Amino acid sequence: MREKVVAVVGATGVVGHQMLQILEARKFPVARIKCLASKRSLGKKLPFKGEEVPVEVLDENSFADVDIALFSAGGGTSKKFAPIAAAAGAVVIDNSSAWRMDPDVPLVVPEVNPEALAKHNGIIANPNCSTTQLVVVLKPLHDAAKIRRIVVSTYQAVSGAGIAAIDELREESKAILNNERYTPAVFPHQIAFNCIPQIPQSDAFADNAYTTEEMKMVNETKKILGDQSIRVTATTVRVPVFSGHSESVNVETEKKLTAAEARALLEKAPGVVVEDDPAAQRYPLAVHAVGKYDTFVGRIREDISHPSALDMWVVSDNLLKGAALNTVQIAEQLL
Amino acid sequence: MREKVVAVVGATGVVGHQMLQILEARKFPVARIKCLASKRSLGKKLPFKGEEVPVEVLDENSFADVDIALFSAGGGTSKKFAPIAAAAGAVVIDNSSAWRMDPDVPLVVPEVNPEALAKHNGIIANPNCSTTQLVVVLKPLHDAAKIRRIVVSTYQAVSGAGIAAIDELREESKAILNNERYTPAVFPHQIAFNCIPQIPQSDAFADNAYTTEEMKMVNETKKILGDQSIRVTATTVRVPVFSGHSESVNVETEKKLTAAEARALLEKAPGVVVEDDPAAQRYPLAVHAVGKYDTFVGRIREDISHPSALDMWVVSDNLLKGAALNTVQIAEQLL
Repeated sequence: MREKVVAVVGATGVVGHQMLQILEARKFPVARIKCLASKRSLGKKLPFKGEEVPVEVLDENSFADVDIALFSAGGGTSKKFAPIAAAAGAVVIDNSSAWRMDPDVPLVVPEVNPEALAKHNGIIANPNCSTTQLVVVLKPLHDAAKIRRIVVSTYQAVSGAGIAAIDELREESKAILNNERYTPAVFPHQIAFNCIPQIPQSDAFADNAYTTEEMKMVNETKKILGDQSIRVTATTVRVPVFSGHSESVNVETEKKLTAAEARALLEKAPGVVVEDDPAAQRYPLAVHAVGKYDTFVGRIREDISHPSALDMWVVSDNLLKGAALNTVQIAEQLL
Repeated sequence: MREKVVAVVGATGVVGHQMLQILEARKFPVARIKCLASKRSLGKKLPFKGEEVPVEVLDENSFADVDIALFSAGGGTSKKFAPIAAAAGAVVIDNSSAWRMDPDVPLVVPEVNPEALAKHNGIIANPNCSTTQLVVVLKPLHDAAKIRRIVVSTYQAVSGAGIAAIDELREESKAILNNERYTPAVFPHQIAFNCIPQIPQSDAFADNAYTTEEMKMVNETKKILGDQSIRVTATTVRVPVFSGHSESVNVETEKKLTAAEARALLEKAPGVVVEDDPAAQRYPLAVHAVGKYDTFVGRIREDISHPSALDMWVVSDNLLKGAALNTVQIAEQLL
């Protein structure tokens, strides 16, 4: 296989950093890596395969020789530069929300809908972190029993909001433990020792009073599972966790699944690890999921409020399966 | 009104301490206060109305002259001593789970079912913290539109697990921020910067794989609302918050309520404060609810996945409305 020239756009960010590590760890056939970022990052060097790669400034000419461009630099940058990269012959895998709902852009989780990749026109979208870990768990249940409705509440880590958010949780926690004042800059309210029911922290709410993150979960889930008849409601909440998203998921299915049947399906599902042994106090935990490629599911039980529904607890590393890993997995699938 | 002799059983605990403060703050007509606790607490003194009240050791003879006994000393103590106190002529208001589901014991939230008090036989039960804040919000919706099903996920503070749990969150957070090791003693796993989907931390799971806390929410909600036809499922989760429980609540009703109608009903509801102005990033937050008597509700919206359901976010101080305040309010109602 010919090795690829790979560009990472937004290479200095939390997710860009993880992309470089994962490309290296998974031995992606990289002929040359291009670390692209804004002018602010000029002069920085990033480690890749034992070398220090200088950051290049992203511009219209960045993609002349690029085979695959992994974008993680925000919606505005993707909107502008993804078409430029695609026109230059690169295949773009974009981690922003800019292209996800475009009908001409496949939205892909390799374990769930790899077939969607065939129809790409140079741009492929990576789903929102909270959606990705949800759909890898939902896929085998949907195939077996047809999902009708999902009620999901999230417990999302601050790392999804970037390096400054991680710093804010750390510094604000220290300040509170020392009885000192701290004025939040990233989040609209105190996040240390608190829960904030608004993600992202900066977006306006939709007319239906859902947040942007909630509507992503609603719309992306339907697109990835390829079934617009699935009904979804979501309440997305930021919690004082550094990394690792947790989700409380209620799933109504057309055909009743017992907890044992669901467990058996999930144990065979790619990318999914069942951690479900209450007697041993074993269930998925954010701090255990960090650094792992898998999505963990536990607390699987038949919903006593409904004749054909399940409750479960789904946890994954939001920077890995929720972002950088899934992007690299899409690139691997393309090879 | 004749002033009452009031005993607080478990007076040295987190909730007992709050009971003393609330009796004083709300000017409950106390002729004399008796602070009862186990032998371990002998020699301690507790502040009440500017005096230092010595702790007395709880025994069979503690209730001879007591009018009202507020219990917050765990299920075992309540099981043994509540009947003794009642036989001695005291009215017991018990904050443990020992008596809640007893058909002869009223389970009361004064804003919701004060009429249930009339039927007491000397023991009245105070609901579980996560249930109390839920039912004050559900009551006006149930009256107006008949609730069919509730799907609730909780974000519960550590203070519900006592003083040692508060200490553990503080010390474990410090250790992690200093890159030091910490071995949890109260919780089965790391709670700092993590979420644990098991409450209480020590109980075995039920046969249906629900936790004790989840089954409390299911059963107590039906009993307090006086409607066994309501279906409830719950996933209860401990989060790294010192005090203040948050809940993501999905409510299906027989009659459709618009978000505006629900908001109008909740604005009139006793004990409820609507905080729901997304444009101003205003919604209930645990850190704002601490120290307040009210239950706060926001993020009220029509569930786009169901023809007749609402999503909302409910927050209250779990030690106040969730425990000590509700107990004192029951005592006030008795007067």
